[in-house]
Amino acid sequence: MTIARSRSADQIQTTHVEPAIRALLDRLDPGNRLVGGYQLGYWNADESPADCQGKGLRPALALLSARAAGATPEAGVPAAAAVELAHNFSLLHDDVMDGDTERRHRPTAWTVFGVGPAILAGDALIGLAYEALAEVPGGRPAAQRLAVDVRALVAGQAADLSFERRDDVTLDECLRMAADKTGALLASSCALGAVLYGGPPGLIDGLSRFGRHLGLAFQLVDDLLGIWGAPQRTGKPVGSDLRARKRTVPVVLAVTGGDRAGRSLAELYRSPAPLTDDDVVRASALIEAAGARERTEQWAWQEAERARAELDALDLPDDVRGEFLDIATFITGRDH
Amino acid sequence: MTIARSRSADQIQTTHVEPAIRALLDRLDPGNRLVGGYQLGYWNADESPADCQGKGLRPALALLSARAAGATPEAGVPAAAAVELAHNFSLLHDDVMDGDTERRHRPTAWTVFGVGPAILAGDALIGLAYEALAEVPGGRPAAQRLAVDVRALVAGQAADLSFERRDDVTLDECLRMAADKTGALLASSCALGAVLYGGPPGLIDGLSRFGRHLGLAFQLVDDLLGIWGAPQRTGKPVGSDLRARKRTVPVVLAVTGGDRAGRSLAELYRSPAPLTDDDVVRASALIEAAGARERTEQWAWQEAERARAELDALDLPDDVRGEFLDIATFITGRDH
Repeated sequence: MTIARSRSADQIQTTHVEPAIRALLDRLDPGNRLVGGYQLGYWNADESPADCQGKGLRPALALLSARAAGATPEAGVPAAAAVELAHNFSLLHDDVMDGDTERRHRPTAWTVFGVGPAILAGDALIGLAYEALAEVPGGRPAAQRLAVDVRALVAGQAADLSFERRDDVTLDECLRMAADKTGALLASSCALGAVLYGGPPGLIDGLSRFGRHLGLAFQLVDDLLGIWGAPQRTGKPVGSDLRARKRTVPVVLAVTGGDRAGRSLAELYRSPAPLTDDDVVRASALIEAAGARERTEQWAWQEAERARAELDALDLPDDVRGEFLDIATFITGRDH
Repeated sequence: MTIARSRSADQIQTTHVEPAIRALLDRLDPGNRLVGGYQLGYWNADESPADCQGKGLRPALALLSARAAGATPEAGVPAAAAVELAHNFSLLHDDVMDGDTERRHRPTAWTVFGVGPAILAGDALIGLAYEALAEVPGGRPAAQRLAVDVRALVAGQAADLSFERRDDVTLDECLRMAADKTGALLASSCALGAVLYGGPPGLIDGLSRFGRHLGLAFQLVDDLLGIWGAPQRTGKPVGSDLRARKRTVPVVLAVTGGDRAGRSLAELYRSPAPLTDDDVVRASALIEAAGARERTEQWAWQEAERARAELDALDLPDDVRGEFLDIATFITGRDH
């Protein structure tokens, strides 16, 4: 399962983005460097080399973003490094808060190094993201945009956490949370390269909206995969969202749908006891019976179409447009 | 216990800095805003008004820093807001990691709102710090400098955490940790106003070194107060550092001093049992007997002198120099 994008884009991630991130990591004290590089998938806990990196979606979008503004992809490298670092900052902290023990088929950083070191390494990575931007021309508006989008990301995670203690979450709240949690940083990823290069505001804002819609589509697909599988994509155990009583979009669609399956699901979510394996299977069946699986799939499709419409409205080189669309196709899972 | 600084400086904190920070807080989602404003001392957990703010040392230094470069203090307001936000980001996370339950005579944020919300609010505050800088002219080098100093701050906290699991901490490591933990952000505080205003590099670097020495002096005084009292200054219970077996400078000076008192202290620190109240009293007596209280006082004095020497080497308006020295005097505790 690879993204059908140009060879040169993959090459630049290997020849430019990863070395840039590794050089930034080398600025850290040994402890934070170790945890940060583990999180990024560069090495194991004993610092032996690992090959457990993420999909590199965000850096790929940031490189495309520079090209969208007429720059070389190399001009987008600081943006690519920044969004990858910001993404991993948020994963480090989220895994602590959610108590998740596995990510990308490995133990999460806090389970290996402890909660304190994982929090600090997250703090260190987001700092490196701002360093990467602030030391190149165009870095001020880029840092500003990243900060605004990370603010939304943090708001999304706060909403996600608070939803676990509420049983009256509305669909609007849930969609907003999903768009904030995943869409905000994808919006930065799609815009930041163009911002660094001083692209026109219309292009930057259009790319940003493209990224936000794409991110919501991505999150909806992830919500589905979190219930019905494909741990090889998510790197997380099937059913973990249900077990944690997460109020994801499929769950809220089912619960607010008003039919019997939705009411049964609401009851299951309200019960104080930990959910058993059987409960998790039953919950996923109830979501499907309530029609919420299909409606979530439709919603993801619709967000992908909105993303595509944003792209259509922009004046872009054909190859850049094509690669943006390839990534959108990959993200919304329509190629597998 | 107030700082003898000009009335106008206090006024500007009230009329400009606090409103700027409150306006930044208003950008946050309600949950993060509530926790962030609680941490900053603006309100209680139920959002009723509170008056529990910190001493405002860092913003005061940032305003002076702008004046040092020939600007009005108002020009330093974004810098003042940024350093106060960065400081409170670090307190939010440190209290989680250290398990501290009290700060500024109130329950710490994580004990009131939970660990997840405290981590997220810290993430939100450091983001606002970068927003504050990135949206004004001069914001790029200012964001860069803040990021570099926050990197040192995070390294200092990582060292502090790791020292609790080690019994071979050297004095050099310990001083480096203290300078990173407290000196780095004071260095930013003293430099950032001048950076924003485009002051000359020689001035900026001199102010930064002044802040770092001042910060180490501050931390050494805090280490002493953490053992021998003045909870009205620290807002933390007396003896809490010893109870947590923190390897502060007085402890490491005693343990590495080679005399009998130091060896007894090392033994006490190595024992696996939690320290009793009697153990804490005995530990502080051993530190004093090893001469480490006096040596730490001397060291703090020496760092304060180094700070003063940095200031002497700079070309500053007399009133600005005077106010920097007032703050230095306050910090090193020689006025009480």
